Amino acid sequence: MEKAFKNEIKSQYPYLCNSKILIAVSGGLDSVVLTHLCNTAKLDFSLAHCNFNLRDEESDADEDFVAALAKNLKVALFIENFDTEKYAKDNGLSTQMAARELRYNWFETLRIKHQFDFTLTAHHANDSLETFFINLIRGTGLEGLSGINADSNYIIRPLLNFSRKEILAYAEENNIPWQEDSTNASTKYLRNKIRHEIVPVFEEINPQFLETFLKTQSHLKENEELIEDYLSLLYPKIIGKTAYGYSLDINYLKKVPNTSAILYQLLKSFGFTEWNDVYHLLDAQPGKMVFSTSHRLVKDRDYLLLTEIDETEDKVYEIAKNEDFAMLPMGTFSFLAVDDIHEKTSNCIYVDPGKLEFPLKVRKWQKGDIFYPFGMKGKKKLSDFFKDKKLSLPDKENSWLLCSGEKIVWVINQRADRRFSITLPNQKIIKITFSL
Amino acid sequence: MEKAFKNEIKSQYPYLCNSKILIAVSGGLDSVVLTHLCNTAKLDFSLAHCNFNLRDEESDADEDFVAALAKNLKVALFIENFDTEKYAKDNGLSTQMAARELRYNWFETLRIKHQFDFTLTAHHANDSLETFFINLIRGTGLEGLSGINADSNYIIRPLLNFSRKEILAYAEENNIPWQEDSTNASTKYLRNKIRHEIVPVFEEINPQFLETFLKTQSHLKENEELIEDYLSLLYPKIIGKTAYGYSLDINYLKKVPNTSAILYQLLKSFGFTEWNDVYHLLDAQPGKMVFSTSHRLVKDRDYLLLTEIDETEDKVYEIAKNEDFAMLPMGTFSFLAVDDIHEKTSNCIYVDPGKLEFPLKVRKWQKGDIFYPFGMKGKKKLSDFFKDKKLSLPDKENSWLLCSGEKIVWVINQRADRRFSITLPNQKIIKITFSL
Repeated sequence: MEKAFKNEIKSQYPYLCNSKILIAVSGGLDSVVLTHLCNTAKLDFSLAHCNFNLRDEESDADEDFVAALAKNLKVALFIENFDTEKYAKDNGLSTQMAARELRYNWFETLRIKHQFDFTLTAHHANDSLETFFINLIRGTGLEGLSGINADSNYIIRPLLNFSRKEILAYAEENNIPWQEDSTNASTKYLRNKIRHEIVPVFEEINPQFLETFLKTQSHLKENEELIEDYLSLLYPKIIGKTAYGYSLDINYLKKVPNTSAILYQLLKSFGFTEWNDVYHLLDAQPGKMVFSTSHRLVKDRDYLLLTEIDETEDKVYEIAKNEDFAMLPMGTFSFLAVDDIHEKTSNCIYVDPGKLEFPLKVRKWQKGDIFYPFGMKGKKKLSDFFKDKKLSLPDKENSWLLCSGEKIVWVINQRADRRFSITLPNQKIIKITFSL
Repeated sequence: MEKAFKNEIKSQYPYLCNSKILIAVSGGLDSVVLTHLCNTAKLDFSLAHCNFNLRDEESDADEDFVAALAKNLKVALFIENFDTEKYAKDNGLSTQMAARELRYNWFETLRIKHQFDFTLTAHHANDSLETFFINLIRGTGLEGLSGINADSNYIIRPLLNFSRKEILAYAEENNIPWQEDSTNASTKYLRNKIRHEIVPVFEEINPQFLETFLKTQSHLKENEELIEDYLSLLYPKIIGKTAYGYSLDINYLKKVPNTSAILYQLLKSFGFTEWNDVYHLLDAQPGKMVFSTSHRLVKDRDYLLLTEIDETEDKVYEIAKNEDFAMLPMGTFSFLAVDDIHEKTSNCIYVDPGKLEFPLKVRKWQKGDIFYPFGMKGKKKLSDFFKDKKLSLPDKENSWLLCSGEKIVWVINQRADRRFSITLPNQKIIKITFSL
């Protein structure tokens, strides 16, 4: 296997020979063998070990084992302890996903801080195969079957073309010790079931099954890339940038074949999974929405408008008296005492400070809001005001109000309320300016 | 299931209610249940049964069973006997592929002859799943995993969303008898292994596995369609028609991303499987070739030229004396006695009949062929002649010779041999014309 590994490096990752490498080492069979192989191939590497503190003494034994390995090979070792359970809870993740996120984030931090060129992980062909089956069991698409990338985002997986059997044989032949794998128990159960009950049947029918599978998966990967190539042709024709996110051209979407599949591909990275709902949005009434956990898709005449869900939605921000500036998430307000009304632009208003009730409040508009538009008689529902201006839904949703008590002072950047305007000559005037 | 079937028809294949239908019935569980369901749904159908004569009395028992079923339901029945083993041998196919080809060809013949709108087959969800695994075991690409079409080429498979379990339960509840499936024994072995040893493990982990799988497969089908959409955009830019087949634009192929995957997609229907060889052809010396069982791909400067392999390659055709016309596979020759040389075009020559040795022979050129070009002194190698004319390889390969004994009379449509030309005034002249 030593020779095969050197060949793999030479043919697939020749640049590794002149790189500064970080190897992710759990202490398990695969990563320990990877470390020894890199050592034999005389690569320039350090080790990184995560202690997820999920299994008490066992986790610590792994850490000690890796420390001894590093000392033995005379290479640098980085160790980080994580409170995985807490991170999982705080971020609403499974323990397994939390460990994964913590691990890769830390590798990337280390890589940048210590100027490593690449991080190596020890995923092998059987990992790929098991992941393929796990995704198949849970339900997936092409992306779940086409395997992990051998080389992406500074992470390289040089053992992907080697089997667990080869790795184990190498360890045994060379008397290389290792710790039992510290993977998540429930995944371990599933992987073990696949490893011991499913894969052997496939191998009984086709003794070269793992090899065949790697070929199949490389075809699937190619197919996936073709779809990406296609989408990169379509994207510029379908997607536009808006002030708050993206717009998707409904007419163009209806013209291309397989609209529903295209929509799914476009939107999956925004957390949309049930693309049939999205598909039906194309013919829905304007105003109809579909939500993912992070984004909102709104039907708006000829476009679907994609915006991030703003978690500050219902928040009311306050501005105290005598502030010259107020920097808020939606933008900055400045307050300036002036002698006269100089220029009138949409991003400023001139108000009578005596009429203002402090603290001023900044909030989003709500159904039922009413104001007294400057330059008009009487009052008007804000919803009608927006309708007359033909605002798009995200524009409406991103409309902020400056309020004095319950009264609207300014539909920001759109229209002042005349109740606060200057009525007497030589009175005090405050110019309020809003900038993004 | 009766209700679910009616709903499936209503939502997926509403047009079946007004169609004249042919149901393919083996006599096995699935096709017999399909027949009963169509009967309950009051569809207008006839039955078609193939006797492949692969299992002697058993095959005949199936035939009798289907005959009784048709009589019982008072519907028309078509039966055809096939010598499957012979067909398989004659066409170099496995028994299973032979049966498949015979079956579908016959259904299509029946459909056209008796004006059926559609043929129905009884493939169900478990068939799809088993095929998925069989293809996975043997090695495949996206097309092998994305499942058979529910609706293609006048064949409809309305049970694809139903499980074997549902079909079996329906048969038992309604006391519907059936014959044991008459599928090919070796496939049956493989399917049984998958059915009894693989699928149950998946279902133990995910009890809704079959349902999940159908969703996964519909995503894969969508992915496959996206690739087809992409290729239909690329085709006109890459492929051109030539006199003998197609040309593929090498420069364009090198410009698009994932060239190798595109080549595979373009060429798979011409029997090319090892697309790495094809990929290397892009940078090969002109003249280099790759073969599939049916086609030849030749590198020729800026193009790959795709031509069918001509099985008549080495054949020599003869033209007897006193024929006015000779219709041969490569075109038609006409022989006309004329008084004088009227017009000289590339598709005719004027020869001295006294110099011709009958029967004339028509054959492809071979290495070493030499002739005496009209209008030139001396003799010339045909290979040099072609080189001077800068003929493409397929043009060379499709060059035919009209010969008299061993001597070339005419490099057809290119150049006459001066040994047969008219040298004396008032002599007999024969005008030989060639037309495609």
